[in-house]
Amino acid sequence: MDTPRRNPRAGGRRRGTATTPERVVNYRQLRHPFTPQAVFSEDRIAALHEAALRVLQELGMRVLLPEARDILRAAGARVVEDMVFIGRDMAAAALDTAPASIRLRAANPLREQIYEDGALLFTPGSGCPNVTDLARGRRPGSLESYEETLKLQQSYDVIHVLGPSAEPQDIAPHLRHYAMMKAQMTLCDKPMFIYARGGGQVEQSLDMIRIGLNLSESDFSDGVWAITVINSNSPRVLDNPMAKGLIDFARAGQMSVITPFCLAGAMAPVTVAGALTLQHAEALAGITLVQMTRAGAPISYGGFSSNVDMKSGAPAFGTPEHVKMQIGAGQLARFIGLPWRSAAGSASNVADMQAATENNMGLWGGLMGNATMNVHSAGWLEGGLSFGYEKFINDVEALQTIAELCVRPEADADAIGFEAIAEVEPSGHFFAAAQTMARYSTAFYAPLVADLNNFGTWEAGGAQNSTQRAKAIWQINLANFTPPPHGAEAGERLAGYISSKSAMGGAAPMD
Amino acid sequence: MDTPRRNPRAGGRRRGTATTPERVVNYRQLRHPFTPQAVFSEDRIAALHEAALRVLQELGMRVLLPEARDILRAAGARVVEDMVFIGRDMAAAALDTAPASIRLRAANPLREQIYEDGALLFTPGSGCPNVTDLARGRRPGSLESYEETLKLQQSYDVIHVLGPSAEPQDIAPHLRHYAMMKAQMTLCDKPMFIYARGGGQVEQSLDMIRIGLNLSESDFSDGVWAITVINSNSPRVLDNPMAKGLIDFARAGQMSVITPFCLAGAMAPVTVAGALTLQHAEALAGITLVQMTRAGAPISYGGFSSNVDMKSGAPAFGTPEHVKMQIGAGQLARFIGLPWRSAAGSASNVADMQAATENNMGLWGGLMGNATMNVHSAGWLEGGLSFGYEKFINDVEALQTIAELCVRPEADADAIGFEAIAEVEPSGHFFAAAQTMARYSTAFYAPLVADLNNFGTWEAGGAQNSTQRAKAIWQINLANFTPPPHGAEAGERLAGYISSKSAMGGAAPMD
Repeated sequence: MDTPRRNPRAGGRRRGTATTPERVVNYRQLRHPFTPQAVFSEDRIAALHEAALRVLQELGMRVLLPEARDILRAAGARVVEDMVFIGRDMAAAALDTAPASIRLRAANPLREQIYEDGALLFTPGSGCPNVTDLARGRRPGSLESYEETLKLQQSYDVIHVLGPSAEPQDIAPHLRHYAMMKAQMTLCDKPMFIYARGGGQVEQSLDMIRIGLNLSESDFSDGVWAITVINSNSPRVLDNPMAKGLIDFARAGQMSVITPFCLAGAMAPVTVAGALTLQHAEALAGITLVQMTRAGAPISYGGFSSNVDMKSGAPAFGTPEHVKMQIGAGQLARFIGLPWRSAAGSASNVADMQAATENNMGLWGGLMGNATMNVHSAGWLEGGLSFGYEKFINDVEALQTIAELCVRPEADADAIGFEAIAEVEPSGHFFAAAQTMARYSTAFYAPLVADLNNFGTWEAGGAQNSTQRAKAIWQINLANFTPPPHGAEAGERLAGYISSKSAMGGAAPMD
Repeated sequence: MDTPRRNPRAGGRRRGTATTPERVVNYRQLRHPFTPQAVFSEDRIAALHEAALRVLQELGMRVLLPEARDILRAAGARVVEDMVFIGRDMAAAALDTAPASIRLRAANPLREQIYEDGALLFTPGSGCPNVTDLARGRRPGSLESYEETLKLQQSYDVIHVLGPSAEPQDIAPHLRHYAMMKAQMTLCDKPMFIYARGGGQVEQSLDMIRIGLNLSESDFSDGVWAITVINSNSPRVLDNPMAKGLIDFARAGQMSVITPFCLAGAMAPVTVAGALTLQHAEALAGITLVQMTRAGAPISYGGFSSNVDMKSGAPAFGTPEHVKMQIGAGQLARFIGLPWRSAAGSASNVADMQAATENNMGLWGGLMGNATMNVHSAGWLEGGLSFGYEKFINDVEALQTIAELCVRPEADADAIGFEAIAEVEPSGHFFAAAQTMARYSTAFYAPLVADLNNFGTWEAGGAQNSTQRAKAIWQINLANFTPPPHGAEAGERLAGYISSKSAMGGAAPMD
């Protein structure tokens, strides 16, 4: 069945004659191709929202940072020791001022994004203490691997916002942010990421953006140059660096992505609805703190809820529960009218079929939930404990496939091609049809790592699987890497600032 | 980022205490969880349909079988030598009588299906001349591997209709259908598959169903006991066994799945719209032949269009073009009001990340197009030239994940769990919450092949990837296999028929 003529009689052609256009698809700015789906009825979404408001008002959040408690108390919250109780009016007021559309800026204006419902952004696997590749094995992240992973991110347009894929553990913590910001600006030209590890580091990181990109104060204030991800400590705790990050980013007009990491059955209720209720309450607390700090400050709703394996307690990703929570989180985000981030990712320890399927399910869950930004969408292994170079390349293939789906196929008379069908006899082939000749070089997505050779050719070529083939691809990416035009100058501008601040002792991360 | 407390303080629990229910999810009958998507506007779908009608009326189909030409001529088609020109009125009349809902019967009534828009069925990778597994390597299909792959299909509820995963090449072609039908009835209890390889084989295969399952004529006529897949030879040819199959299945009230295999750029126009137009025309020709043979006979619309790699001419699967054609085919099927089949599948030569991503994209394309039945959804490698045992197991994980998505999460007050959230202190954990205790054993999907252990445990356990782990799973499936209760009796009933017909020379396949 389904086996007619597997080997077409004519076999391919050379690409790129003088008269045929090269294929150009814009992967830089994507819009969701599919309508958002639902796992809950509208009245149940309202019920989840109501329950989250009750959590905030009746159960409260533990907020460790006195400055954050002061801001919330001044705005009307009830504060008892380190517990903060946020009323529904306060939460509603915060949602009133939170912007629905946020401009993400970049060193390269072509990399700018409008962060809003309907937009589709991908970021790489991030926050990984280790890296792994077939050439060098698994090892702790270093500045070298941090810079390499940035080069890989820069190599693919379908990665829209930079992420700290590898932790540069060979740089002392009080100096690490200098190296990370410098690398982002010298090697890349995309919207940037800053870790919220205390006021000193955040302030200096933002200084470095002004200096490195030579921005006037008005240019710096016009849109968002850097984002940070704020994880509440589920259940119901906002710790010092996270609260401080929300405040500092709000004051600086930069974007926090408030993301409770609610693993159902462990740090969150065992049900999809319960985990989402807790996620929603904690996200609303963060949104409220941001808006009470500075009304109108950019903030992204965030959801990264999944489940644990009840046998081992291990986090799981790409599961049915994960996908359902992605779709439910999208409903909640649209209910409150904010753009939002989701996450893909993989629990697998190696770049195998499990890793691919876990990640693909999280990518499609993000599509079904119309997530504005899907974080960890390429390279995340071991539930984030490792970044895999070969997995990154294979995941980019999935991202590029999705990016292609954002473009609808043509359907005018020439595309329908009655004349082409008329031109070819029964049992004939379309290789030489006029329609084919005019379009073949741009008709199809060209695979990055997929090998379409038949078994014999593949075996004769070394019988490499897609993980093995990906090794050669990232090696070529790194070998051929060219920094963006502004990179060298940015590095020169930053040199004095970094040496001066380093000499003054750097900035220690906040506990 | 996204790294709060990866190792929950409490680690798991034993399953299955006396008071907690075991997890029971019905994977046998699924309904689509997502609304169908579109790649074309409604007016463009109408334009594709119009163009397909023009193809049938003005360009015609080459129909090799005189009996088929006679049926079509008698119904009003213009026939010139072996070319048949079907008018729009004839096509419209065929669509008027083709049923929108078809009952698929099975030896086990619990395996019955209603084949209609909104239903979601999966079939295994089928039609493969070779099989491959890590224990025995790649080899031609045999009766042993045909039977083994049936046992694997029977082992998973999420495989809904049997398929000829491996071709039993060690059985002579004129006797092969005896072995294939006997194996389906003795080893399995699901809706069956018959190859349309000529009138003799089809007639005897249907006889065997009556005999093996001990069906009265009225029971045999009530619904569909077997399906076949009819591939037109794109472009615009219907060969002898395919035309004969359409006629014989229609007369016997069994279901043909008319499936042009339109590879854009090779046997079909290079555009998505053009390939779909040709697919639609050829499918309409098949539907018309079936309905003119017997009005009201069961027939499924089918689409398995993808693209070739323009560098090598090799078929590609899971590509953006494949997914777009799946969605477009779904639009066309709903436009004419018929249930329809799509297909997933993989061009990869090995069970790797490429294989997983190709297949996952085809599975999600089928979801987005609301395909009634997604064929080749597990195990297909090399574009169908090989069936992979380990790939089958890994693909079943994806299918089971999708099956779980068909069930919406609860969202009543207990599921939302305000009380559970209230019960757990900030920074606490939910392992011992009353809500968790009541639900943990049934809350989450339990993975089939995914390994959620951390890196150290995984490495200590042999560092096996999911393809390697899948080997142990199919081996256990085969070792523990128990035939369905009716199997032995069916085999006994068939023995006399098979020996008698074999002695009379069997039934040679039609050229």
